Amino acid sequence: MSYFPSSLENLIDKLASLPGIGQKTAQRLAFHILALSDIEAEAFAGAITDAKRQVHTCRVCQNLTDAEVCTVCENPRRDTTTVCVVSDPKAVLAIERGHEYHGVYHVLHGVISPMNHISPDDLKIRELVARVAEGGVSEVILATNPDTEGEATARYISRLIAPFGAKVTRLAYGIPVGSSLEFTDDATLMRAIAGRLDY
Amino acid sequence: MSYFPSSLENLIDKLASLPGIGQKTAQRLAFHILALSDIEAEAFAGAITDAKRQVHTCRVCQNLTDAEVCTVCENPRRDTTTVCVVSDPKAVLAIERGHEYHGVYHVLHGVISPMNHISPDDLKIRELVARVAEGGVSEVILATNPDTEGEATARYISRLIAPFGAKVTRLAYGIPVGSSLEFTDDATLMRAIAGRLDY
Repeated sequence: MSYFPSSLENLIDKLASLPGIGQKTAQRLAFHILALSDIEAEAFAGAITDAKRQVHTCRVCQNLTDAEVCTVCENPRRDTTTVCVVSDPKAVLAIERGHEYHGVYHVLHGVISPMNHISPDDLKIRELVARVAEGGVSEVILATNPDTEGEATARYISRLIAPFGAKVTRLAYGIPVGSSLEFTDDATLMRAIAGRLDY
Repeated sequence: MSYFPSSLENLIDKLASLPGIGQKTAQRLAFHILALSDIEAEAFAGAITDAKRQVHTCRVCQNLTDAEVCTVCENPRRDTTTVCVVSDPKAVLAIERGHEYHGVYHVLHGVISPMNHISPDDLKIRELVARVAEGGVSEVILATNPDTEGEATARYISRLIAPFGAKVTRLAYGIPVGSSLEFTDDATLMRAIAGRLDY
């Protein structure tokens, strides 16, 4: 038997379903939300609905956006001949923080991972190949994470796009092996971009 | 400049405003929410709205409920002559888990804390006094936490309700069951000795 009202129990359950949030933390968060003003609570619920409704992938690079084309792709000062391929939007954020990369991106939304049943068809690889095949791309920087799955994904993609004649490079091993782009400091990340190698 | 769509940034900000949730965790949670199905995301947002809209305090004991009277107060088998005074709904849950207390509760929703600008008027103390003054209460158990603020609150309340003739008791202090004397703090140990019982 539960001693919290059912709608409160429901909110606690929903919060506890989030990654890394246990039952105790979910309770604490739920009580915090109950203590918000009506307007704040509505805004919170609205933020979830809005994000879910408005956020979709950019027609060009597959990054998340709420417009048809993302802010990077619609920026006329970005060099569209260089495409940096990353696994997810957080990696774009990490590279943009360095303010030194002026090309565009392609977001795969994952890496090939047989263990997790993620095949190339589950990723935005087809869109990347189409983009390169269309022409106008002189260099593709493979910037997946420097771990086994990221490497395998990079290798898979490099083979697919080799026929189209664009130069294919990989981030330099300035990045500590086994880590994640998201948590790499800006200086290391910039070194890795500057020292990128033929792949 | 932000590289996430504004509705996603907004969701991240909202999540990061929760206690104990930092920017990185908020990002992780936001991406998790974006990956939910539309129906799941709607249910999540709805859980917040519903909890906020439906949950209020019980007319009798001030515990949280979505009915007019909470499940404990409406249970005819509970002994309404014994009122256990606690600081918050989580304490009710803790005591109910023991399945041995058959009286009813009074939830203060906080403790007196001059440091945090919480005065007696901010708590449900007036409601408790009215309840005791009405008669029919033979014992009031003060079950606020055994810390400075909980003690001060208990003392304050005991003085207010003394005139009405109900017996006023306080939870026993002592060594927690299953713990070790070696790791019990001095104050607890002294209290346990002072409150020793015939065996």
